[in-house]
Amino acid sequence: MIPIICFVGTSDTGKTTFLEKLIPVFKERGYKVGTVKHDVHGFQIDHEGKDTWRHKRAGAQTVGILSPRGMASVRETAEEMDLARFVGKTFWNEDLVLAEGFKGSPYPKIEVFRAALRDHPLCSRKEHLVALVSDDPVETDVPVFSFEGVEKVADFIEERFLEGRTSANVQVFCDGRKVPMNNFVEEIIAGALKGMLSTLRGWESPGTVEISLRLREK
Amino acid sequence: MIPIICFVGTSDTGKTTFLEKLIPVFKERGYKVGTVKHDVHGFQIDHEGKDTWRHKRAGAQTVGILSPRGMASVRETAEEMDLARFVGKTFWNEDLVLAEGFKGSPYPKIEVFRAALRDHPLCSRKEHLVALVSDDPVETDVPVFSFEGVEKVADFIEERFLEGRTSANVQVFCDGRKVPMNNFVEEIIAGALKGMLSTLRGWESPGTVEISLRLREK
Repeated sequence: MIPIICFVGTSDTGKTTFLEKLIPVFKERGYKVGTVKHDVHGFQIDHEGKDTWRHKRAGAQTVGILSPRGMASVRETAEEMDLARFVGKTFWNEDLVLAEGFKGSPYPKIEVFRAALRDHPLCSRKEHLVALVSDDPVETDVPVFSFEGVEKVADFIEERFLEGRTSANVQVFCDGRKVPMNNFVEEIIAGALKGMLSTLRGWESPGTVEISLRLREK
Repeated sequence: MIPIICFVGTSDTGKTTFLEKLIPVFKERGYKVGTVKHDVHGFQIDHEGKDTWRHKRAGAQTVGILSPRGMASVRETAEEMDLARFVGKTFWNEDLVLAEGFKGSPYPKIEVFRAALRDHPLCSRKEHLVALVSDDPVETDVPVFSFEGVEKVADFIEERFLEGRTSANVQVFCDGRKVPMNNFVEEIIAGALKGMLSTLRGWESPGTVEISLRLREK
């Protein structure tokens, strides 16, 4: 699974501004970056009157747009999709995902903190806090970086989450729910699929594989 | 694979307007509909100044947004993604995909035609034309439906492409390219994966399965 690092903090602490500085640092270091914004209020990304907007209004559950330089999609869901599944669906050749929000998720968090806005940080190690960004003195047992310390935050993420990742990376979703599996099961599945594909001439040694199955009629 | 039907025709023939009438017909019949718009000129779907727009401008390759009622993503690509792969990535529980454009694709096509705009249809059976929508007399060897015949077009698509679909549906992408496979290979892969998953307690009989693998480090 692609590493997900969540940047959390109260409104107006400067999460987006910090990410705007951090994203190009990773890009310069050769990483492909994906981002996810958590929008608890819902969003309107499509422009009124456009063809995709008209498809959606007519009742399409999901609308997509494909062009020579990119693609986009908008999907309605009955409930909020699990972040892991969203990441699994949306990102495939990215090296890391920087998320904005998702305070309640089980992923590592870096809190952007300003003493003027809050007495103490929102998260602790219990909520998977791994570092703070703050220019104010703050009592904590995790590393604290300044708002200007963008390169240092990138170093920290790189050392801690991007280096030495195992080579087999397997994600399996059944009916949309992620199947939890340990390294042993991961390796068995990866090995079996690798073996299966190695018998197809011309497809012997892929870097990434995506498989989707429909096993039952609706 | 989810059936893809492309609606083609010159500009201003009323493709989007026809789809706006067709989508709700399928929805009423209990189908989940996905749509894809082909935008050969590129698109700007995100609103300037929004957080996702800022992430993208800062250099994120792909940006996503997740909310309690939906999700969206925008991805930059070096070249136009193959329609089959786009559909495989974007739609998973949809029953059919209605595409607007993609004249050059290998999927079944329904051409929306007006004699005032063109002498003769763009496509023939050679380009996978399966029907025309036209109120003008037109020389053709495929069925012709009127612009008002939306229910009849839905019947045609339903009978021809949605009924009697096989139950095992396998798609495999290696490094982003779709692996072509016949029914025999499809069934072997579906059977092997089904067997593998049946050993995981609590995940014995899924309706859909999605697997992604990273076999090599970049």
